[in-house]
Amino acid sequence: MLSLSLCSYASLLAVAALILVPVPGLPAIVDLDDGLTYVWPLPQEFGHGNATVLVDPGISLVVEGEGGGSAILRDAFDRYTRVIFQHNDVFDIFSAFRRRKSSFDINKLRVIVHSKDEGLQLGVDESYSLLVPDEDRTSVIGEVTIEANTVYGALRGLETFSQLCVFDFGTKSVMVRKAPWYIKDKPRFAYRGLLLDTSRHYLPIEVIKHVLDSMSYAKLNVLHWHIIDEQSFPLEVPTYPKLWQGAYSHWERYTVEDAYDIVNYAKSRGIHVMAEVDVPGHAESWGKGYPELWPSLSCREPLDVSNNFTFDLISGILSDMRKIFPFELFHLGGDEVNTDCWTFTPHVNQWLQAQNMTGKDAYTSFVLKGQQIALSKGWTPVNWEETFNNFPEKLDRKTVVHNWLGPGVCPKVVNSGLRCIFSNQGVWYLDHLDVPWDKVYTAEPLEGITDPSKQDLVLGGEVCMWGETADPSNVLQTIWPRTAAAAERLWSKQEAIPTTNLDTTALPRLHYFRCLLNSRGVQAAPVKNMMARSQPYGPNSCYGQ
Amino acid sequence: MLSLSLCSYASLLAVAALILVPVPGLPAIVDLDDGLTYVWPLPQEFGHGNATVLVDPGISLVVEGEGGGSAILRDAFDRYTRVIFQHNDVFDIFSAFRRRKSSFDINKLRVIVHSKDEGLQLGVDESYSLLVPDEDRTSVIGEVTIEANTVYGALRGLETFSQLCVFDFGTKSVMVRKAPWYIKDKPRFAYRGLLLDTSRHYLPIEVIKHVLDSMSYAKLNVLHWHIIDEQSFPLEVPTYPKLWQGAYSHWERYTVEDAYDIVNYAKSRGIHVMAEVDVPGHAESWGKGYPELWPSLSCREPLDVSNNFTFDLISGILSDMRKIFPFELFHLGGDEVNTDCWTFTPHVNQWLQAQNMTGKDAYTSFVLKGQQIALSKGWTPVNWEETFNNFPEKLDRKTVVHNWLGPGVCPKVVNSGLRCIFSNQGVWYLDHLDVPWDKVYTAEPLEGITDPSKQDLVLGGEVCMWGETADPSNVLQTIWPRTAAAAERLWSKQEAIPTTNLDTTALPRLHYFRCLLNSRGVQAAPVKNMMARSQPYGPNSCYGQ
Repeated sequence: MLSLSLCSYASLLAVAALILVPVPGLPAIVDLDDGLTYVWPLPQEFGHGNATVLVDPGISLVVEGEGGGSAILRDAFDRYTRVIFQHNDVFDIFSAFRRRKSSFDINKLRVIVHSKDEGLQLGVDESYSLLVPDEDRTSVIGEVTIEANTVYGALRGLETFSQLCVFDFGTKSVMVRKAPWYIKDKPRFAYRGLLLDTSRHYLPIEVIKHVLDSMSYAKLNVLHWHIIDEQSFPLEVPTYPKLWQGAYSHWERYTVEDAYDIVNYAKSRGIHVMAEVDVPGHAESWGKGYPELWPSLSCREPLDVSNNFTFDLISGILSDMRKIFPFELFHLGGDEVNTDCWTFTPHVNQWLQAQNMTGKDAYTSFVLKGQQIALSKGWTPVNWEETFNNFPEKLDRKTVVHNWLGPGVCPKVVNSGLRCIFSNQGVWYLDHLDVPWDKVYTAEPLEGITDPSKQDLVLGGEVCMWGETADPSNVLQTIWPRTAAAAERLWSKQEAIPTTNLDTTALPRLHYFRCLLNSRGVQAAPVKNMMARSQPYGPNSCYGQ
Repeated sequence: MLSLSLCSYASLLAVAALILVPVPGLPAIVDLDDGLTYVWPLPQEFGHGNATVLVDPGISLVVEGEGGGSAILRDAFDRYTRVIFQHNDVFDIFSAFRRRKSSFDINKLRVIVHSKDEGLQLGVDESYSLLVPDEDRTSVIGEVTIEANTVYGALRGLETFSQLCVFDFGTKSVMVRKAPWYIKDKPRFAYRGLLLDTSRHYLPIEVIKHVLDSMSYAKLNVLHWHIIDEQSFPLEVPTYPKLWQGAYSHWERYTVEDAYDIVNYAKSRGIHVMAEVDVPGHAESWGKGYPELWPSLSCREPLDVSNNFTFDLISGILSDMRKIFPFELFHLGGDEVNTDCWTFTPHVNQWLQAQNMTGKDAYTSFVLKGQQIALSKGWTPVNWEETFNNFPEKLDRKTVVHNWLGPGVCPKVVNSGLRCIFSNQGVWYLDHLDVPWDKVYTAEPLEGITDPSKQDLVLGGEVCMWGETADPSNVLQTIWPRTAAAAERLWSKQEAIPTTNLDTTALPRLHYFRCLLNSRGVQAAPVKNMMARSQPYGPNSCYGQ
């Protein structure tokens, strides 16, 4: 049995402050108070001791359980050992102090995965437990143990273990402080998302993969891929091959194989990819290849509701995309629909009159048709909140409503029996550069919802990285570090997340996580700059900016 | 024999414009005029035809010559095949059009490296020739050939070949357009540098490696590592282990093994690492571990010239660093020395009087002592231009003078018989965010120097990424794309570089190269934004911003 001094969240948070040691005239030296290890997001339950254990750079993976043979697990172990052992001492050019291999405390990582089912459904079991023994090795000698029901739980455990491992520059060894550790962890919400917009600016595959890597470090699990919008249509649709004539250029495109590659890359990090086809607004670029989708050449949005081809084409797109995106949720947009082009264009207006419909009726009809198409392909439709705000009763009962306009929407959605994703733009739209990290952190998806059965209808939340001014050059530092604030909100126990004294509780840990992202090659911006992604104000430690 | 239609630079440049196809109300579609392939920087000599050849994703490396067995070459081949074949079609989920393997035109890359000497000296032979056959394969069937005297020349050839390869979204194949190609190439200057400053902000190893990767794409070959400055001392010095107490924090440090790792990583990309120890100014952080280096606690810079320990310590640092940095150039700084702390501090002033020295004399003496220490370790000293401006005749005749204060310095330096590196801050300091790309591009290191024997004394030039407001979150997009402008200036024939009509000659090619960097995961900023690294002004194609 491990001897554990289980500490409460409060005590962890109280000591989890970086100490700034002031030196007159020079920037303060930054230190941890007593070697406490920071993990972001905070695990649900944990306890630790006071020992320090050294981890062997040659640590080996030992697997158990029906799912132990997973290639996803093996790849993740290789990735994480590269992350953990960035500082190597293989050259030993100065014969500096070095531990002999036999003196390492940890040389095996035992990962038990009970199920070999690698299906990545919404709500897939991401729970895990993690044990790091102390140096007297009264339990299993020299082994760290991660136990999970699915390989995706094991991935979360690997991430946590990688954060417990720190490189000590004195001994030039990777160590875990405050061992033994016992962590039992699972996410609070099943849906912890980030929206990427590849229409306003094309993001190369390499960039999307980089974003996926960074998401896994914060235990986010849904990439909401807003692939297409009015500005450009980068995705190949084999059934309608002229659609990607709406791409910005011949090179700013994704083949179906590229999209599939991204889905698989995401899956190997336990991340769902939810695709979006935003209709009937936000679709002007479709008409570059098929101008008949525009009400007229001078009035191009929304898509022509009076033309059957519009729905044939949506059906064709969704059929093709169904082969690429296995995730059960599919986003149909439905936001910001201005129906003037319908009422002002003669042939569409004629059709509306024949149907005895107003523009709003036609908008409703369009959204509901889209939902039926998605449902017929086996998808659960997700729609932006305008659809709910306008015709809540008409939405299919499977609909997931995606909040964005403001607070207080999810309470109405769940009261009506529908499910909700929280993305209140005032706090979780990352293109709102003036929102500071603490406003992101204190936003609560369950605000105003007390009935547990209603709370269950909130799938989670998502931060949205709209791309009008975000391109490959700055998208990552617009996403990070503020997305980390939302990630802890979505993963950790609500009661464990501090709501006051953030400067001494959450902030030092967020500084630490931001610098950890930097060390992993993620361009997370300074935490405290006035505007997201703005430059550091001057020379200083990463831990102080 | 290859049948070649050799074209002049002028004709290449004339057709090298991206075509913007205007679509009313939508961003223009970007296209190349007739499939011309862009290479940045421009090769010295080349010719091409009009055929298109397809490259096999399973292309194999065939080596020849005494240096053909190089591990550096094999690693580079693996890197470049990953870069070239980013879009894969292995899933084939839609059975879309795909060429049968037998129909690829190129399935071998033959690399001939004549010398097995992998020493990376200043002026190492980086020349190469590159042949891409046309589809009728009248020469060597199915083979691209790169021939070089050294592996470093082969690396440059691989980079050029990777830029000739473009993914065609129609056929989903990588192709080379305008084949056959015959390229004979070598750099104009032996020294093509980028300064990184890891004192104002610590840059993690991952970030430095990312910068090195990006440098290799533009054929830059010197990382000037400004490791230490007054704000922080991140490097381990085993002989004086308290020096890195001047680091910002316990984690913002480089072990000697880290530094060695970076040197090797750079070498495998044909990049020298020139370390800098900037004395006697810019050294306040040294005193955190050894306060006796400060004239007094209240007056800390320059390093105490009156204390022998100062020079013992410099000698110790240089001895330790000699084991890490094999490059023959070593930068001793010497800039911005304000000697007030010497004249105002009683014990130092007393020493000055005893030596019958002014502050300026002592500055001279300090720099010359530093030079002698560097020379005694087998290094060639590099010093910032203030040393030359103040005491040109006293500098060791091996000195390389590093220009920065303004134009017109290198002509004076080479007239005095010393060698020079051009970094005029008005054009090549990357922290000057208001300098547009074309000002970087048109800066000429040989300006004002007409005598060929004097021109030979200009080693080259360097862009400087000072780190006051550049940290891991924004350093790459401050470096790129403007550094590419300098890179072409330093590599290509002077007469081939356009000086007029840049918007139709160089600019479209630079747009193209910036987007290529993005596709390789490098956060190059929009080319035409008003201030370097600022956000794109709105939605658009990468090729138009």
